[in-house]
This record gives sequence, C-alpha cells and structure tokens, in this order.
Amino acid sequence: MHKGTISINTSEKVELIDITTQINQAIAKAECTTGICFLYNPHTTSAVMINEGADPAVQDDIIAALERIVPTQIAYKHLEGNSPAHVMTSIIGNSETVFIEKGAVELGTWQRIFFCEFDGPRSRKLQWRFLKT
Amino acid sequence: MHKGTISINTSEKVELIDITTQINQAIAKAECTTGICFLYNPHTTSAVMINEGADPAVQDDIIAALERIVPTQIAYKHLEGNSPAHVMTSIIGNSETVFIEKGAVELGTWQRIFFCEFDGPRSRKLQWRFLKT
Amino acid sequence: MHKGTISINTSEKVELIDITTQINQAIAKAECTTGICFLYNPHTTSAVMINEGADPAVQDDIIAALERIVPTQIAYKHLEGNSPAHVMTSIIGNSETVFIEKGAVELGTWQRIFFCEFDGPRSRKLQWRFLKT
Repeated sequence: MHKGTISINTSEKVELIDITTQINQAIAKAECTTGICFLYNPHTTSAVMINEGADPAVQDDIIAALERIVPTQIAYKHLEGNSPAHVMTSIIGNSETVFIEKGAVELGTWQRIFFCEFDGPRSRKLQWRFLKT
Repeated sequence: MHKGTISINTSEKVELIDITTQINQAIAKAECTTGICFLYNPHTTSAVMINEGADPAVQDDIIAALERIVPTQIAYKHLEGNSPAHVMTSIIGNSETVFIEKGAVELGTWQRIFFCEFDGPRSRKLQWRFLKT
Repeated sequence: MHKGTISINTSEKVELIDITTQINQAIAKAECTTGICFLYNPHTTSAVMINEGADPAVQDDIIAALERIVPTQIAYKHLEGNSPAHVMTSIIGNSETVFIEKGAVELGTWQRIFFCEFDGPRSRKLQWRFLKT
C-alpha cells in the first residue's frame, strides 16, 4: 500500500480548496493504475468533501449554507471560540473513499475533491493511502 | 476486485430509494462471500445513506428535516437554482463502506441502503466495488 | 481480514463516547501493525464521528449545535418519536475509515473517535474490520 501526505496552506477563515490535481499527481507518482484511494483529514476544524467544481458559485453557496446551518447565537462552552468550525467538521466528515481507474480518481463529470477549511488560515495536511487492486 | 454500476431512475424532486436488494444481487453475481463493499455516488446533487427502512415514515421525516435544515431564503449565487441539493449532498455524503458476510451486506436489523435524490427526477448511477477478504 | 465488535452501553439520551482506547485494544489483539481500520455502526439512531477529544466542552458544543440544527417543531410522521435521532444519524454518518500505523489508529493530535448516541440509553455495538497492508 502506498501512503503519503498532501500539504495545503489555506488563506481564508472558511474556504474550499480543490485538491483533485494534487491527488492525481500522487496517484501518478505511486504508479497506481487501478485501486481505491482513501483520503483522511487529521484536523478537527477542517474536512474533506466532494461536490461540483465547474461553477465556483456552488462552493460559495455551500459555505453560505453551512454558515446558516451551524448556529452562532448559542452559548458555546469551548473557550477557543471555534466551536462552529468543529460542528462543520462533524457534518462534512473527515474522510472520502474514491475509486482509481486509469491512473486517476474516477470522479463524476462535475465532481472535484475539496479540502474544507473552517478555521483558517492555517497550514494543513491531508493523509492518503492507495490500495492497488 | 469486482466493480460495476447500479442504474437508478428517480421520479421525484427529492426521494430516498432503497437499493439494498440491487446491491445484494450484484454481490451474489460477483460471488463475493466475505469482504468490503464500497459504494460511490458520482453525482453532485444526490447521495448515498444508510438509515431505517422498516417504517417509510422515517424516510419522509428525514426528507422533511433536510428541507428545513438547508436554508432556502438566502441569496444563492449558482444560477441553476439547485444549490440546496448540492448542500444536501455535502451533508449526507457521496459514499458508504459496508461489510459483506455470507454473500450479502451485513446491515443492522433496521438498516437499509438508500440512494438519495435531491434534484430529480433524473437517471442516476451508483458505482460499487467489492473487495474480497 | 480481522473482524469483531465493540460493545458500548450508553447512559444518556444524547451522548458522545470516546472509543479510541477500545479500538486500539482490538488492533493490538489482532496484531495489526499497518493497515486500514473500518468502523461501522449497525444502528439507525446512533453514529460514529471523529472530532476533538482534549476539551470535553467541544463534545457538549457539538451536541448542543446538533439539537439546534435538527428541527423539533415539525410534524414528524414516525410514531416512535425519535425522528430527530434518525436525522442526526444521517448527518453524522454510520462509518469511519482510519489508517493504522505502529499498531494503533493514526489520528491527528487532537482527534478521538466517538460513538454518538442519539436515542439512549441503550446497549449498542460497533463493528470493525482491519485490513492489513
């Protein structure tokens, strides 16, 4: 099994960053033609997500919706002040499992893989493992 | 590794469709007795989810709750008008990983696997891979 | 492939229980040094989640936020009265896939794995499989 880490520097408080190209570069380097790609976010205020990449407005809309969904007016106990970011991480999730075909992730026509920053800007890492099959 | 696709024709705007039988048929055809079943939704306005299948009211309640959770009154930028569907996809997720035992998915007593249509009706596909172990 | 089940007795209606130590004990017993750990919740009103374990206030805040996010005032159809718990399960999800390194789950600095009870107290189970690689 091949393993490694992708580094991501975020520049906004809340931001979706398309990491599909970085993942495909790692797959090419690992010479993995067919298999399963496991992605894992080791942080507690960021996440990984797959959604539309063609129109950047979709990313803006997802961020706007999440900021409405997660309540800000309740009395959070965690003193660091970033509890909404922890909640967003729980909603979106820490991992994605995608298939590898022809040496690249096998996504749908409009899909891209996004690293989701909810408490940036920060230096982040995303762990990956490729299982050849 | 065995791989394939399930076709699903949805008939409503928002709808949960029980696909457990279709998946078990694919497992039987692949002659996979024990292993891991990876399910992947290649669309950006649908999802895959596991929840109760015994009482169809639960499915209605989940849909009703999602329609309340995802805001409709905010000014979405994406001009196609289906941003709430993209948000629901991000909340529910594109994949499920379940175990295979005795030639079928090993679900809990009340669990069924649902394809979630959030922007139908459409012709959809769900990709699967079975890892024999 | 190694497989097994962890038993969890919950004591509250809604509760997050850190199960990281139990999972690492199962990994040690299976003598799995490197691989992938698949966790699966076979219930429809509980879930599995990864988030911060250092400050217990984060767990309280995630519960408080989920109780705000999931509507209680709508007319749910499911007569058992626990539809909000089913919705929380769909939002958080039934499974987690984490990497195994040096005989333990490879989590981020602040991460812990939580079993999420949404309709307790109950006796619960969590299924696991370890794929050695």
